[in-house]
Order: sequence, then C-alpha cells, then structure tokens
Amino acid sequence: MRAAVMYGAGDVRVEDRPDPKIVQPTDAVVRTIASCVCGSDLWPYGSMPATDTGRPMGHEFLGVVEETGADVTGLKAGDLVVAPFTYSDSTCDYCAKGLHISCRNGGRYGFDGVDGGQGDAVRVPHSDGTLVKLPVAADSELVPSLLALSDVMTTGHHGAVTAGVGHGDTVLVVGDGAVGLCAVIAAKRLGAERILLAGRHAPRTDLGRDFGATDVVAERGDEGIAHIRDLTGGVDKVIEAVGTRQALDTALGAVLDGGTISRLGVPQYEQGPIGPAEFMRNITLTGGASPARAYIEQLLPDVLDGSITPGRVFDRTFALDQTPDAYRSMADRQVLKALITP
Amino acid sequence: MRAAVMYGAGDVRVEDRPDPKIVQPTDAVVRTIASCVCGSDLWPYGSMPATDTGRPMGHEFLGVVEETGADVTGLKAGDLVVAPFTYSDSTCDYCAKGLHISCRNGGRYGFDGVDGGQGDAVRVPHSDGTLVKLPVAADSELVPSLLALSDVMTTGHHGAVTAGVGHGDTVLVVGDGAVGLCAVIAAKRLGAERILLAGRHAPRTDLGRDFGATDVVAERGDEGIAHIRDLTGGVDKVIEAVGTRQALDTALGAVLDGGTISRLGVPQYEQGPIGPAEFMRNITLTGGASPARAYIEQLLPDVLDGSITPGRVFDRTFALDQTPDAYRSMADRQVLKALITP
Repeated sequence: MRAAVMYGAGDVRVEDRPDPKIVQPTDAVVRTIASCVCGSDLWPYGSMPATDTGRPMGHEFLGVVEETGADVTGLKAGDLVVAPFTYSDSTCDYCAKGLHISCRNGGRYGFDGVDGGQGDAVRVPHSDGTLVKLPVAADSELVPSLLALSDVMTTGHHGAVTAGVGHGDTVLVVGDGAVGLCAVIAAKRLGAERILLAGRHAPRTDLGRDFGATDVVAERGDEGIAHIRDLTGGVDKVIEAVGTRQALDTALGAVLDGGTISRLGVPQYEQGPIGPAEFMRNITLTGGASPARAYIEQLLPDVLDGSITPGRVFDRTFALDQTPDAYRSMADRQVLKALITP
Repeated sequence: MRAAVMYGAGDVRVEDRPDPKIVQPTDAVVRTIASCVCGSDLWPYGSMPATDTGRPMGHEFLGVVEETGADVTGLKAGDLVVAPFTYSDSTCDYCAKGLHISCRNGGRYGFDGVDGGQGDAVRVPHSDGTLVKLPVAADSELVPSLLALSDVMTTGHHGAVTAGVGHGDTVLVVGDGAVGLCAVIAAKRLGAERILLAGRHAPRTDLGRDFGATDVVAERGDEGIAHIRDLTGGVDKVIEAVGTRQALDTALGAVLDGGTISRLGVPQYEQGPIGPAEFMRNITLTGGASPARAYIEQLLPDVLDGSITPGRVFDRTFALDQTPDAYRSMADRQVLKALITP
C-alpha cells in the first residue's frame, strides 16, 4: 500500500509499505477513505532531525473495515468507521473514566509498528475499543465533518469542556487554526454567548465568525491583550489552541483572576509561568490532549443532523500521492487543513 | 502601640509604632486579642534583604473592635471579630464572585500604610467588607480555632474546594505544615474517604491523623512518590501545601492522568513544568491564594460546634514581646504554628 512517511523536517514522502494485516486478535484493518494533516504534524515537519528509517504519519482517518481479528465483536467488514487520533481499549480504568488518551493499552498511530493514518490502509489495535461506526454511506457529504471528529472537533470540544464553558459565558479562543475554529463551534454548542477569537488570518477568522465567534482580535501580544480587555474587561474562560508561549501569555493577560485557561495546542515549551503572580491570581490551567474517543459518540448526532459542520475547516483536498504538497501548503499557511483522499 | 517589624532575614523586632487611628470612613480599629505567625512569613524571614524602614508583619488576627469610621454600619465597638488575611470591600466584581483575594479595592496588612497583624492593634480598611463578627466571648476557648479561620483553615479549605474533593475521594495532601494539616481537615469535612498526608515530622503527621489522615508518607522525592503509588495506584486529587518545586514534583509524580493539583503554598519558583508531558497527561493545576473572606462564614458553624478544631495547629503561645522567638522557633521547626497574645 501507499503511505506517507516523514524522513525529517520538510521531507514527507509517499511510498510503498507492507499491506497491513491482522497481528493481534483485537486488530482491525481499515481501508482509508479520508485522512488529513494535523497542525501537530507541522511541528515535526518544521524541526524533525533527518532519519533513514522515517516515521509513518497521520492520526486522523475515516474508512471502511476490511478485516477483523478473531476477538473483534463490534465491527465487521464493510462498516464505515472513524478513528480517534489515538487507539484505546475502552476498558481500562482511564478509559472507564473517559480519559481514553491515557489508555493503559493505548498508543499512537505511526509508532510501535502501527501504521499512520495517511495511507491506503491502517491496522488499528484494540479496534473494538477504538473505532466508532458511522451510520452513513462512504460517499456521504458528511465525511469531512465526520473525519473532523477524529481530532480537531473533539479537541476543540475538550477545550470547551475543560474550560467549563456553559450557558451565557464569555469565552476567548486563542488561535484561528482548525482546532481553534472547532473550539469556537464547541463553545457555542455549550451555550457561550460571546466568543472572542484571537487570530489574524481573515479567511480563518471569517470562518470562525460563521462558526459563532462574536468578536475577532487580530492584534498579537500586549496589543491583543489590551483589545480583549477593552472589549470585555477580561474573560473567565480561555481556550488556548496554539501551543506557543506567546499564545499562553495572551491567555494569561486576557484571563480574569480566578479564571481558567484550557490548553489544546501541544506546548512548544517545557517550563511556563506558574509562579507567585499566577498563584496570587488563582489561575487554573487545564486541558491537554483530548480523549477524542470519549467525545465522538457525544458529538456525532450534531454532525449527522447538521447542527455543527466542523468539516468546513478542510479547505483543500489532496490525493494521497500529493501528501507532500498538503504538508507544504499547510506549513506555508496557504491551506487551513488539508483533506487527503486515496 | 507595640508591633512586630521585620528588618531583614532573621531580624524581627517588636517596637513602638503609632497607635492606629481611623483614616478612611470605612476603617475600623481592632484591638488584637490573638495573632500568629504564618508559614509564608518564614519566606522573608529566611531571605529578606536588610532594610532601614522595616515591614510590619502579620496578617492573621482576631480582636475587639475599638473604633469605627463614619461609614461603617455592620460593626461597633466591642464586637469580637476575625480578620481574613487580606482586606476586601466585599462589593466589587471579584468579591461578588467569592474571589475576595483579588478585591479591586483590597490589599495586604503591613503594606501601603496599613498595620500588620502582629501588634497591639490594627487599622482595618474596608472593615465592613472585611471583618467577620464572632458570636463568642473574647476569652472563649474557641479563639485559636476561630483565629485559624483568618488563614490556615480557610486556605486548606480552598485547596480541598479547588481540587474538587467530594464524597468517597482519595486525596493526597503534600506538606505537614499548618496549612497541610488544615487541608486534611477540609478534605475530610468534604467527604474524602482516604487522605494521604506526605510529611516527615511525626508530631505533625500524628496531628494529621487526628484530623483525618488515613495514611502518612514520610519519604520524599521518588521514594515518596513510589510509596504513594504503592498505596493507591496514584491519586486523582492532590493538595500541594508547601510551595517548593520538590513538593510540586511529588504532586506531579503521585497524581493520575486527568487529575488535579491544587497549590496552596506560595510558589518559591517562577517557572514550572507545564510542557508536553503534563499536557499529554491532562493534569489540571489550580488553587492559589485563598479568598479567605469567602469561606469564613461557611466554616464558622463547624468551628463553633466543635466539628472541626483547626486551632490545634497552634502548639505554642508567645507574648507579643516574644514575637522574635516565635519566628525563630517556627523557622527551626520546633514549633508548628505560633500563637501570639498581647
């Protein structure tokens, strides 16, 4: 089969790899119908040291079950499924409490002999616990929005949930990437009345307005903070959907004492400001990697009935062979989020 | 009047200072009956650069109202009152949401021309919004426990509340200082079933057991973490009542993915570990300086009826003139918490 492999910064290749086969009796093999490139894929794309072995890429995919292991009971060949961006058994103590991202037996696509999602097919470990069946046909126009449940939409939702967004709230979303935009959808869905979106790419913030953002803050740094404070006096709930220190500093500058910052962007820093100043202000820092699997079934009805349309974050479609172009276009910010089809 | 003033590390003096007078119409003058030394007073006691002017010390006191300003309506001379460790108007937006520590018009004792609490008397700004009347006599044996409401008990409670402690929970309290011990009281009061106390001073951890700790972990660092994990498999809720990086690292090592660490000790660091590892684990970092005023009335009935006895953290009483000894004894860990009487 064909699959995308990263060999270093800026070096993604589509190459032939062994066809996935059932290894464990809990595995399923999924023939990919749609996958995509994640903002988090761009971090190694910008900085990964060159390697001879390469790393299979991609962790968001939707496809048709082709084969199942002997112990798989909930899936059969022909099922259309979406995969959360990590696999999980859905039975361990962490999964039981909805924290599938920390599954005792879970793992990441593209590591430990597991395929990446950007390819013709994927062997999915713990497939019963991982994959979610979709009640639509493989050619449904809902596919992009359903694919968004694999990561960006469930991640945006995680931000809104952990920030404690509720009816009538004012929420700041920092970052106009696909996750930030999905956080806008999620905040609105949970009842936020005023949603400020900090971002400076007009096509993205325009989409953010469509999704429910009531105000757009294009300035960065202190100017951005001043603008947010002018508009609101400060906000109680912030979803930080970038991962840089600057984004965190914006969140800290905009949040009111006693407020909550939920982080969705993988931090590009090891240490951060949690000293006496933040302590005196009673800032809560929460969020993290989304337990996507826990949220898919929760959000699915809203995708199916069209209440939310997170698939709109995909603004260009690439054939699998063009995956290197998809990375380049996203890294150059010409594309918000690239959809990949076989 | 006499009052304690710190002139540098290890240099606390009791000296004559001007008698407090009403300055603002919202002021009250309180004649002190009991005050105490806070764990946080020990940080400057250990490191404050020498100064000629000195800094009035103390922010926990209980006393009798002596005089009130023209605008004070809720207090009168003769009222026995306890003061939360910061003053606040109880009317601003922050106070309205129970975050009196961030009061728009609030401040700290010993700063900006306001007396410290370790003295014969204190001018209390915004006295109507700050002081809480106590329905006992000034010679009540409840005075130590009522004084504890000014800081340690309300701070311990803040930790339990922000950590989300509820019925049946397992909670780790890091630190066997007065705040840690009060956090044990608070966790038990909120229904925690198992309370691990990390501390290595037997007289203190013994008191912690009296307060409700079910397990004591005397080891530090990795050994302590291993012991906690042996006992519990990891805990969902941690109250960090020290403020050092080691204590935070213990909390991070003991907490389960998806868990909450509430910090009560003023951080003795500016930056801390909030990078990809903590992000992937979905650790929530919360807590901060307690809005003591918000909690006093809530905890008062339990002190009055003897359900909780936080005053037991006071293990030695000093006369005001002996305040330097009180500091020394606490710094040397001979005394857990020093009560000071005129």
